[in-house]
Amino acid sequence: MKLYNYFRSSASFRVRIALALKGIAYDYVPVHLAKGEHKKSAYADIAADGLVPLLELDDGTRLSQSMAIIEYLDETHPEPALVPGDAIGRARVRALAQSIACEIHPINNLRVLKYLAGTLKVDEEAKNTWYRHWVRTGLEAFERQLNQLPAGRYCCGDTPTLADCCLVPQIFNGQRFNTPMDGLPRTMAAFEACMALPAFQQAQPSACPDNEP
Amino acid sequence: MKLYNYFRSSASFRVRIALALKGIAYDYVPVHLAKGEHKKSAYADIAADGLVPLLELDDGTRLSQSMAIIEYLDETHPEPALVPGDAIGRARVRALAQSIACEIHPINNLRVLKYLAGTLKVDEEAKNTWYRHWVRTGLEAFERQLNQLPAGRYCCGDTPTLADCCLVPQIFNGQRFNTPMDGLPRTMAAFEACMALPAFQQAQPSACPDNEP
Repeated sequence: MKLYNYFRSSASFRVRIALALKGIAYDYVPVHLAKGEHKKSAYADIAADGLVPLLELDDGTRLSQSMAIIEYLDETHPEPALVPGDAIGRARVRALAQSIACEIHPINNLRVLKYLAGTLKVDEEAKNTWYRHWVRTGLEAFERQLNQLPAGRYCCGDTPTLADCCLVPQIFNGQRFNTPMDGLPRTMAAFEACMALPAFQQAQPSACPDNEP
Repeated sequence: MKLYNYFRSSASFRVRIALALKGIAYDYVPVHLAKGEHKKSAYADIAADGLVPLLELDDGTRLSQSMAIIEYLDETHPEPALVPGDAIGRARVRALAQSIACEIHPINNLRVLKYLAGTLKVDEEAKNTWYRHWVRTGLEAFERQLNQLPAGRYCCGDTPTLADCCLVPQIFNGQRFNTPMDGLPRTMAAFEACMALPAFQQAQPSACPDNEP
């Protein structure tokens, strides 16, 4: 397997976590988003959506979208399971993952920030306030959802799931923009529990071959 | 079952389509987003994330996030299937759905448009240009993805899937903001094929009890 990705892309980070949790070996192919490499023809010919991450299987099949990739990995490499075995459990985990991946991350990704600064001439401070606003609003909603679930070491129960794969990169991003993380005890406890695991450590941006400190 | 939703919410529309395709009866509970009803305590007490749609099962279990709800419905009411039976097929359909639900819709939803106008003082024309930009960019990427799949009546094959449940509401939204839809033959053919089905007709905003013409 080959993973086309970028150390700082939080969607890439989600898939790296899943691969590490499952102990799946892969070739790391860096695509430098900040330099616009994803828009050049070499990558555009590979990725129809021009985005990272993209997982290329050994037979050449290419899969896009981080949550879809993780569910594929979970179906083809079932241990350890990242999605529960029952329909309600799956709905809960997917909803938590989507609360990050559909409600927070898209509004703050690189191309949106570029549009704010470049086209709408939003200044640096207003752009950073925008960023923190959506992270904070989204994580408060996430915390309220966790509060309705039974207590557990991670987001949903005592093993990491797809929800944790999405949460951890979002916390990294939020911290990079100095988003306050107070008042989110369940969320931050799950984050800390994840970061105590080697798989999350190995997958983090600073451990990536294309990391730029 | 009860569906808390709003006629114009495209995430609500996705779930209405799935319910209609499967022939599942439900109570329609309107939540008027434009009047801020989702922020009032009556709804906030029900929905931890304060968003629509929310599906309440007969035993009181509440499920959020449209794609998670649709997968739950598909697992518990398997006919007709909205997600394929094989892992690669599922990955394809989910990726297409997420291309809409994670790359287009979140950047253009009501609260983001309100932040642009209210906090960033973006004028009406620039706001509408923003809207069209993300719809158009996203649908062009969607079309490129469809072009890599075998020809079919709908997005993925000859039966409607989760991908179509996400595509159709996005086209409605794009058209409402006069987004040009030229040069998207596969995408628009799938849209037209869907709209020829009674389930999509029944689920559309103009057929909802809370519709405001």
